[in-house]
Order: sequence, then structure tokens, then C-alpha cells
Amino acid sequence: MAPNQNLAATVYGPNDLRLEERPIPEPAFNEVVVEVDSCGICGTDIHFLKEGGFGAQRLIKPIVLGHESAGVVRKVGSSVTHLKVGDRVAIEPAAGCRTCDLCKVGKYNICLDGKHCTTQKHDGNCSNYYAQYADCCFKLPDNVTMEEGALLEPLAVAVYAGRRAQITLGSKVIIFGAGPIGLVCLIAAKAMGATRTVILDLEHAKHRLEVAKQLGVTDVIAIRKEDTEDQLVQKIHEILGGPADRVLECTGSQPGMRISIKATRNAGRICLVGLGNKDVQLPMVDAISREIEITTAMRYNHDYPAALEIVASGYVNVKPLVSHHFDLKNVHEAFRVASQGEGIKIMIHLVPRDTNNPIKFTK
Amino acid sequence: MAPNQNLAATVYGPNDLRLEERPIPEPAFNEVVVEVDSCGICGTDIHFLKEGGFGAQRLIKPIVLGHESAGVVRKVGSSVTHLKVGDRVAIEPAAGCRTCDLCKVGKYNICLDGKHCTTQKHDGNCSNYYAQYADCCFKLPDNVTMEEGALLEPLAVAVYAGRRAQITLGSKVIIFGAGPIGLVCLIAAKAMGATRTVILDLEHAKHRLEVAKQLGVTDVIAIRKEDTEDQLVQKIHEILGGPADRVLECTGSQPGMRISIKATRNAGRICLVGLGNKDVQLPMVDAISREIEITTAMRYNHDYPAALEIVASGYVNVKPLVSHHFDLKNVHEAFRVASQGEGIKIMIHLVPRDTNNPIKFTK
Amino acid sequence: MAPNQNLAATVYGPNDLRLEERPIPEPAFNEVVVEVDSCGICGTDIHFLKEGGFGAQRLIKPIVLGHESAGVVRKVGSSVTHLKVGDRVAIEPAAGCRTCDLCKVGKYNICLDGKHCTTQKHDGNCSNYYAQYADCCFKLPDNVTMEEGALLEPLAVAVYAGRRAQITLGSKVIIFGAGPIGLVCLIAAKAMGATRTVILDLEHAKHRLEVAKQLGVTDVIAIRKEDTEDQLVQKIHEILGGPADRVLECTGSQPGMRISIKATRNAGRICLVGLGNKDVQLPMVDAISREIEITTAMRYNHDYPAALEIVASGYVNVKPLVSHHFDLKNVHEAFRVASQGEGIKIMIHLVPRDTNNPIKFTK
Amino acid sequence: MAPNQNLAATVYGPNDLRLEERPIPEPAFNEVVVEVDSCGICGTDIHFLKEGGFGAQRLIKPIVLGHESAGVVRKVGSSVTHLKVGDRVAIEPAAGCRTCDLCKVGKYNICLDGKHCTTQKHDGNCSNYYAQYADCCFKLPDNVTMEEGALLEPLAVAVYAGRRAQITLGSKVIIFGAGPIGLVCLIAAKAMGATRTVILDLEHAKHRLEVAKQLGVTDVIAIRKEDTEDQLVQKIHEILGGPADRVLECTGSQPGMRISIKATRNAGRICLVGLGNKDVQLPMVDAISREIEITTAMRYNHDYPAALEIVASGYVNVKPLVSHHFDLKNVHEAFRVASQGEGIKIMIHLVPRDTNNPIKFTK
Repeated sequence: MAPNQNLAATVYGPNDLRLEERPIPEPAFNEVVVEVDSCGICGTDIHFLKEGGFGAQRLIKPIVLGHESAGVVRKVGSSVTHLKVGDRVAIEPAAGCRTCDLCKVGKYNICLDGKHCTTQKHDGNCSNYYAQYADCCFKLPDNVTMEEGALLEPLAVAVYAGRRAQITLGSKVIIFGAGPIGLVCLIAAKAMGATRTVILDLEHAKHRLEVAKQLGVTDVIAIRKEDTEDQLVQKIHEILGGPADRVLECTGSQPGMRISIKATRNAGRICLVGLGNKDVQLPMVDAISREIEITTAMRYNHDYPAALEIVASGYVNVKPLVSHHFDLKNVHEAFRVASQGEGIKIMIHLVPRDTNNPIKFTK
Repeated sequence: MAPNQNLAATVYGPNDLRLEERPIPEPAFNEVVVEVDSCGICGTDIHFLKEGGFGAQRLIKPIVLGHESAGVVRKVGSSVTHLKVGDRVAIEPAAGCRTCDLCKVGKYNICLDGKHCTTQKHDGNCSNYYAQYADCCFKLPDNVTMEEGALLEPLAVAVYAGRRAQITLGSKVIIFGAGPIGLVCLIAAKAMGATRTVILDLEHAKHRLEVAKQLGVTDVIAIRKEDTEDQLVQKIHEILGGPADRVLECTGSQPGMRISIKATRNAGRICLVGLGNKDVQLPMVDAISREIEITTAMRYNHDYPAALEIVASGYVNVKPLVSHHFDLKNVHEAFRVASQGEGIKIMIHLVPRDTNNPIKFTK
Repeated sequence: MAPNQNLAATVYGPNDLRLEERPIPEPAFNEVVVEVDSCGICGTDIHFLKEGGFGAQRLIKPIVLGHESAGVVRKVGSSVTHLKVGDRVAIEPAAGCRTCDLCKVGKYNICLDGKHCTTQKHDGNCSNYYAQYADCCFKLPDNVTMEEGALLEPLAVAVYAGRRAQITLGSKVIIFGAGPIGLVCLIAAKAMGATRTVILDLEHAKHRLEVAKQLGVTDVIAIRKEDTEDQLVQKIHEILGGPADRVLECTGSQPGMRISIKATRNAGRICLVGLGNKDVQLPMVDAISREIEITTAMRYNHDYPAALEIVASGYVNVKPLVSHHFDLKNVHEAFRVASQGEGIKIMIHLVPRDTNNPIKFTK
Repeated sequence: MAPNQNLAATVYGPNDLRLEERPIPEPAFNEVVVEVDSCGICGTDIHFLKEGGFGAQRLIKPIVLGHESAGVVRKVGSSVTHLKVGDRVAIEPAAGCRTCDLCKVGKYNICLDGKHCTTQKHDGNCSNYYAQYADCCFKLPDNVTMEEGALLEPLAVAVYAGRRAQITLGSKVIIFGAGPIGLVCLIAAKAMGATRTVILDLEHAKHRLEVAKQLGVTDVIAIRKEDTEDQLVQKIHEILGGPADRVLECTGSQPGMRISIKATRNAGRICLVGLGNKDVQLPMVDAISREIEITTAMRYNHDYPAALEIVASGYVNVKPLVSHHFDLKNVHEAFRVASQGEGIKIMIHLVPRDTNNPIKFTK
């Protein structure tokens, strides 16, 4: 039975997370109200919680965290036709204003006036109920679990990043960072045809590199403090059998970007996915004289349909990403584990596990 | 031991195939001479044999057939550095003049003055020896058999077609024609991320549709004489769960192209691969008003490296395509079987099977 | 003073055009109501008037014609911020549903549920008042006349077609058809860098070919009944100094498309803009074996901003396109002239000429 | 009468330029020998002369400077068919190995084993005679002067940069740096449809900004020492009427790249053309979160044909770029003027001016 209250994981300031009650929303004409079932914790959430913001986004009011969610439609707006009460859906948490120059050409993901959560103006959806545009809710078939529905969000990031990087059959790919985004990028890269892959992370993240191995990476590099850029480039070349064709940089760090450029072939293509250091010192004469292209990817750009399709069809398996499960009442512990990087993807369950899954979620 | 003669399957005119002796070639400075091991028969060969030509290409002199070959390097030109005697290689049978406007931008595959075989000016390589530009010979690792090396040719066609069609993760794809090219297109489409695929061929080609099923097609359509265009469009939509995103048209037939257009979604993309009817009646108001793009693919465009990489890494398996094996002395029987469409890919062995395979070729 | 009635040029069936009164619309929250000043007549309007429809679009109710309009904002919806009463605007008559897969990626122009006028479901705007989404109304600077505002519609078609055709600096371009769309395509092609252009039309349209000369085409071809395809291809090659790089086909005719293919170089690109014959016999073996790409363009895809910018900056001059001016009360005569192809662009003035032009419209 | 010696402007080390005699070359089978008429001085030449190298390229032997040349064919290799003795040609000084993975897909400009001059391994052509691949020599029509032929080199750089930047009709473009490359980039940007342009350079380069005004830039910014990044971004926005769509960065400097990123709109595109600081501190969180793409351009990629076409057709005028003329014997003075940035393009004449020009070179 659907709860008659709307508890929301709300951040009030650095390290001030509260499970507070919010009004249960009503749908606008083009919205549905979803009872959230599962919500994954993302690095952005952790930045908001620990630092009171992320990048240019600063807390200007208490904000509900969470944006990797799936749930069940409980109310339907007056003009919505493709969804009905009871439908199991994944929620895309990014929508544009639909009228600006960017939205007109399809770049709603970087619309300056978009409803993108979690940002300083827009609540996330780690709450019992969430109202979202109906066209941002994607109906899940019975064989896709709620947890997988929630995982469509990072998977969509990876699908988009791979598209922007132009990964194709036979690509040699570097993935920098073995956190959840790095790992879904590995999944996406392989699904797009990458045949040789290397993933790098710091030595202390070895448990993540282990998951990369399970996911079929060609080899991993655990970066030690004493490793120089040139040594790491050399190791990458050895694993890939030469310079990389493509890079998915998921750390936003200076070493990540620098090594990406240095380890890539002439006319190679790097996609920057991770947000990190505000200013980064880059070897640009090398990049220009070897005509390396540096593209960027922010959120996703109508990649939920493909992400859902490849999960539903069994083309990829994202289940190994989930390392921990917590009930909403244990949200503080969930965020503690997430922020300490102990696992991979931490999943918060707002309803008892498997309630809404025709097929149980098991790895 | 390498033969001291150079027998070549040569066509003199319609249905006039002769196994004749040709001089053993010497390599130019930038060439290698390959002792051919395995050579697949392609539809183009059959057209040349049965009709004395193909499309605008007519026999103007006796021509050696065959262009899907792999073999062992026996001689190396003076300026060749990346290959040596004894190397096992696949032979890309397409090279441009390297100096025209098309070659300069990389479109050597449609260079007007290219060395493309088999065409009216250029011999193929179903012969004991063949001299080819060294940069068109791709060294095979030990785990790739000679037969797979030969199959890289049709696979490169499919990789290129899929690239031109812009098949991506989650694409719904129609493949028209279940001959060898249609079947490698199925393999490539799935490797590129197509999750729903349908392949169509005439009723009497059911054995080919069966192979498509083994290769994992979503479903097949055996076209009956009485099927109307609209009925076939309807069946395609049912299998794909809606209109197609992409089409690989491998028949060159009017029904193939017409149904491709009609069954594709707005803004969908069709790649025409097969050469067939010279003039074709197409529903262009439908195509234009729904903004369908019709691209074309001729040969391949530096797709051998990717084709080799995905075979060598085990990303795809092309072995199921080989239905028949013949020794060179039985070349007439091989062409008879091929021209009657009894199998899928007919492989001609110019040396005893597995002589040059560290790993035996078994499906 | 704004009229207190809303007269609309309405088609009831073949050759049944009526100037009827319609209610003055009120703006929805995201709309403005524009008092239309100038409205050009398009070929689509003529098709609707003469044949009761166009392509798959058939009259299912009386429809207001006209979709090339500019006017003055008279009412503003509650959420509109970028426009105010009195603003002079060009009206883009195409908008998508904003929520479907096509709209999400920016292809609103072929949205299956779009507000595209004139179509069978959506009135045009050759009427005193028209309510349109505010984001589809583009504010004109003082130096752009109402007539030029109206001409942005065909110019946007041409800008989009040129983009789709990928015309670049130094392109050799064929333009098929010297009607208004062909002529704006000529303007756009030259603006994009085409240095050699040829425009073709039937012999009896010589006055249009003359306008093409004024617009700076390299040369024109007046097609005679007895001209064969090969002769026309030959003439095109002579004018362009070789095969074309790009084609803008604006007739939708079989000869137009056939000659386009035949006269284009290997790897050339043809954009089909004109809608004409439902079924067209095309030389596809030629197209495929020479890897010609056939793209299509329907309406425009957020090209009003660029169209406005190049007019406002003086980069292009579209004024020579207007051959006739009529007041709304003479709408029957306007359509007679338009349908007989006597001029180029026929402009209907719903308010006295230059009322809303800070600078008079003179060629 | 052609000289019977081959004087070459040769650099032996920092500030050690010698006019030395070299053997007159003979053409290989695929080459022509050109008697050089005019040769422009490029920034790369100055780097080699002043610093003994440029970027990763260091002098390892004395090298002939100059790579912006045009001349007259004096000898023709055995297999050359499209050129004959006496032909006036522009010399493209970049050619690939024609066999590597990069060359195969058309990226010969960054071929690792290319004949790119001036580099440490390859002489330039500020010499009486130069042997070049025939397919890299482009025949000039009578109305194109030798000086313009020489200027095709920087123009080709600009055409390529504009293509990589994807400048289109109505683009708002920043050009950073008003040296010769910045100025040809301005010409190319406007030719591609840029309607609003701003060019920036340091205060002391005001004479260059004046030339930009003559070439029709919307406005210029003379950067003062005290200007902050944010102030310059603000000025750019004022001139362009908002953020830039595209940037052509021609300085390779940190401020140039930083301001490029900051002044560009979401989803804008920056092309880095200039080589400068090895390491550059860039605001990457800003770039990523606003999805700015950073592409690079090295040399040109078969852009000579378009560059020649737009000059020959009068579509653009590059003559205003030439500020100084010197005879070969005054080469030291020519390089002094060039290195002090007193003019724009310094042209060295190896034969008396206008000897080979059917039409005199006058601005």
C-alpha cells in the first residue's frame, strides 16, 4: 500500500542530511506522480551533502537528494496518454525548458533553464513521491527490476559519453576512474564494440578495479603515488597494444585529463565526463599538433530509451554495479558508505525490496 | 611447400571458367606476394561468371575471380617493413590511386582509378599467388584461421555498412536479404548494439533464414509471392515493436528498397549495400516527407582493422557462415554450388585445409 | 489601428477559396497573438487550393492557407517573457509536440503530432490574426521589413536544405527548379560558399531563370522537351567544370532526381527538398556504386535564427524574390497569379504596405 | 629564364640564416620540380630561425625555410599526367605516407611519417627549385597571381580550421590573434557565413587589428595588460550580442584558450589552431558542464582545392594580407621584418615580381 506521507532525504547544509516530510505532490497536466521504489546514490549527491554544493551549483535552499530512481505511477496528469496508474517506470531527471535555442535542437541536457535534478533549484527524488514530466518517465517491462530502472540513470550517462566519444567496433578505450560512472562507461564501451579496454583508478580503490575485471576489462591499472605520467602512458600502451583511440575520462582530475591526452593516438577522441578540478593544466601543444579532439558530456541526451533497451534485451548487465542496499530509514548510513567509497553503487529502497519486481533482483 | 606454379580461376566469358596457369608475380617495392590459402566466393564472382560482368563492369579480358582471400607472405617488396616472409595475412582487395581528390579525403573505395578486384581491369586472387600492396595485407594473429581471414572481406563490407547506416546501441534494424552479406550485416548490426533485428528473404532461401536464427536475429520473414508491401511492413513492425531505426538493404531489389523506406521511422536511415536492379521505382514523397536518409556503401573504407579486431578478440564469430569447402581443383563444382545458392559461404582451399592454421578451423 | 475582425483566406475544396471571418484568437499561456502584416504564397498553398490537398495531406475540413508570414504582436500569453505587444515578428509555422522521441532530439520538424501549417489539421496564417507559440515568433530588428520577415520561411527551408546537403566553401552545386524554393536555395548555396552553381527549369519558366541570373548563378539551363538525361548531364558538367558536389532538388520530379544522381560525383550528396511524384524511377546501381548519398529535408530545423541573422546583417538579399504584391481583398487574384507561375513570390498584404516597416520595402 | 642554381634560405641554428646553394632536384616518377616564384614567411619559419625549432620539432640538420609557395613547373616525373612544364602551380607542403591508418582515412595531415615542411626532417621551399609530389601541386588559372598561390597555404589552414569549428550561416565567431592566420581565419569565417565576428590581439598589434577592420570584422578588441578575463569576456559578448557560437583560437596562449572557453555558449565549439604554450591551465569544469567542444586543427586536410576555388572565383580576397615584398637576396631583412611583427604577410620573391603573373598583383 502506498504510503500516505512523503519522506524526503533533504540536505540543509554540509553534512546536514534530514529525512523530512514534504507535501505529496499533485501532477500538472503533463506530469505523473511516481511512488519512488529505488534510488541510487550518485557522486553529485555526496558533493552536495559534504560540501553544500557541486561546481557552480551551491545550496540556496534545502534540497532533496537523489536522481537515480524508478518507481510506480500513482497519479497521472490530464493530458498524459502513454502512462497509467500502476505502470512501473524509470525517471529521467533531466528536462529542458523546451523553447530555447538549445532545446529546439535537442540539447535539453544543457538547457540553461532546465529542470535538472539535483541542482540548487530543483529537488531530487529520494523521496516517497515525485512529480515528473510524463515524457521523462519510461515504462519498464516486467523483466526489468526497479533497481535496474534506477541504474538506467548512470547507464544513460555512459551511453551518451560513449556516443560523444564515438566509440565503435574495435576501439581501444581508456576509462579513467573506476567509480560507478567509470564502470558503466566500461559496460557501454564494450557494448559499443570496444575490444581492448583499460581502466585506471587509485591504488586504494582496488575493490572497484576488481569489479572492472568481472565486467571484462582487458586490464586494470592501480595508480600508485610514485607513478609518473609517462610511466602510466607506457602501461596503457602495453595493455591496449598501442595508443588509445578513445577515452572516457570520469574523474575530472588533472592527471586523468593529462594522461588521457598523452596516451591517445593522433586524431583520437577524448570525452570528458567527470567534473572535478575547476582549473586543469593540460598539454595543449601535444593535443593540437596531434589533432586530438576533446569533447564533453553533461548528463544524457535522450539516452534513456537506448539504455532501457539494452538492459531489457539482455544486451548488457548492470546488476553487478549494486554493492549495497539500504532502506530509506537508514539513509544516513547509506550516505556514509557511499561517501567513503566502500562499495560501488549504493541503492536506497523506499519500499521493501522486490515489492514491485515481477522478477526478483539478484545478481 | 609452396607450389611452383600459379593456377588461377579465370573467367573467359559467360559460364566459361578455366583453371589456367598464370606467371608467378614478383612484388613491386611496396607490395608483397601472398600464397593464397583460402578464398571465399562472392556474389560478384557469380555475376561475372554467369553474365560476363556486373553492373557497369563488363569483361574486357579474361579475369581471375575471387577477392575474399587470406594467405601466407612469400615475397616482400624492397620498401616493405611491417610484413615478412611467412606472415599469415588477410588481403584487402581494394586500394585507391592515392592521389585523387577521393583518395586524399580517404574515400579510396570509390576511387575512379583504384585497384579494386574483381573488376574488369583488375584480376581477383583465387590463384596460388597474388601480389598486393603491403599496406592492404593485414597480419593475422595465431588464433585467427585462414578461413576467418578470408571472411574479413564480407565482414568489412558489413562493418562499413553498419557505420554508414549509423547503427547504435538499441537500434531496431531491418536486414534485407539473408545471403552471406545479409548475414554478416546481421552479425555487425548486433555487434554495434542492435537489439531488435529482422531479416527478410524469399521463401526458398529458408536455409539462410535458419542461419540467421542461429546468429541471433530477433525473427525472420520468409517472403511469399503473395505478400504485399504493406503486409510485409506490418510484419516488420510487429517483430521490431515499431518502425525500424536503420536498414541494411543487401538485395538491390525494388521490393527491398521500397519496403525499407516504408517500414522505417521518421528520420530513420537506410544504407543500400546490395547492387541489383539498375532502375528502381521508389516512394520518394514518403521518404522526403518523413525525412528518411538513404545512404550507400561500396566495398569498405579501411574497415579491415576493425573487422580483424572483432574476430581476433572473439567479439564476433563469423565461422557459422562457411557452409561448404572445396579444393581448387573442384573450383567448377564450388561455383556451381555457390551460384545455385545452396549454401552460405563457399570456401575454396588453395592449399590443404588447416595447413596454415595454428588452430584448426572448426565451427 | 488593428482590425476588429479576423478575415482568413480559407480553402473549402478544390478551387474553392473564401475570405471568411474567423474568431479573433486569444493567446494560450505560451503563445502570442500576431496581427499578420505580410504573407507569401507557397506551392503547398496552391496544391491545397487546386487539388484539395498535398501528398498524404487531404482536406478534412476547411483550412486557412498561408504559412509565410510576419506581423505585429498584439497579445501576449501569461508566461511569455521575450516578446511584448508591438513587437514586429516573423512567424515560424512549425512546432513539434515537444515530448516525443523526435522532438527530444530536436527533429520537431517531422514530429508526427506537430503543429505544422498548412496541413490538414492545422490552419495557416493568411488571416488578420494568428496565435502562435511565442518561441516560434522571432523579433525583427528595424532594418528588416515585414516582407523579408515573411520570406524567412522559404529562406529557412533553403538554409536547412543547404545544411543537410552539406554545402561548403567551393562546392559545385546543382539546383533543380527555379521556383521560389529553388531561388532561395541558390541564395543559400552561394552564401554557404558554393562557387559554381547551375539552376535548371523548364523552358517556359525563363523569367525565373532570369531571376537566377540576377542572383548570380553561374549559368542556367532551360530544359527543352527534346533534351535527354545524358545531354542535360553533359550541360551541367560543362557549366560546373565537372560533376556536381552537391544537389538541391526542388522539383520532386523524376527527371530532377535522376539527373541529380547522374550528374553528381562519386561520394557526392543530394538533398531532396521538393515533393512531387509519389513514385520515382531512380538509377540506384549508379547511385550505390558511386556512393552517392541521398538526404531529404522537410521544412526547417531551427533555421529561423540563422535566416533572420543573414538577412538582418545584409549577408544575403532576398528582396528580389518578391514579384507581386496584393491586398488581402484581392486574394483570389493573388492565388491565380501564383498558381499560373507568372511571377516568383507573390506577397499578400493584410495591412497597407509599409505600415509596420521603419524602412520601406524596395528592392 | 630559369636560374641554373638553386639558392635556398637555410637555417643552421638560432638566428643563423644562410642563403646557400643546394643541388637542383630531379623529379621522382610522381613528382614535379617547381621553380618557386613567391614564398610567404610563416610564424613557424620564425620559430625555427629564432629558437632553432618549434614545439617538438628541433633542428637536427640545416633546414630550408618556407612552405607557402607558388611557382612554375620546370620538370615533370614519368608518371605525372595532370601537369606539364610551364604550368603555374601552388604547392601544398603537406603529404602523408599514403599507407598508414591515418592516411587511409584521409588524415594525411597528421601522418606520423608524412612529408610535412618545414619540419626537422623535411626542407621547406624558399629556394629556387623544389621537388614535390605532383598531386600536391595545384594548377593556378590565369587570374590567380603567384602571390595568391602562395597565400593558399595560410588560407587552407583557415578553411580547415573553419570546417573543424563547424562555422555556419549566422555564426557568431571569436578569432583570437590578428596575425596572418587570425586574419585568414577571419576571411574564411565570414566566407562560411559568420555574421558577427570579433578579433582580439594585444594592444601593440593595432596595425593588424586595423587590417581586420578592412576585412570587415564586426569589431576588434585591443587587449590591454590590465584587462581581466571577465572584462574581455564581457566585451566579446557586447560585440557579438551574446556568447560566441564558435572560436578560432590562433595564438596557442593560455589567455586565448581560457577566454575562448568562457566566452562561448553552451554546446559551442572551439577550434584550436595556434601552437603556443606547452602546458595551459584551462577552466574545464566550466567547459564540461556547459558541454563545450574543443577541437584542434593541424595544417589542412585537402583544403587547397577549396582555397583555390574561392580565390579564383573572387568569392574571397586575400590580397590585403600582403604587407611587404622582398627579393630573395634580401631574405635576412624579410625575416627581420617578419619576426618583429611589423607587417602582416611578408612575401619573398624568388623571381622578379609579376614575371609569371598574367595579371599584375595589386591589392
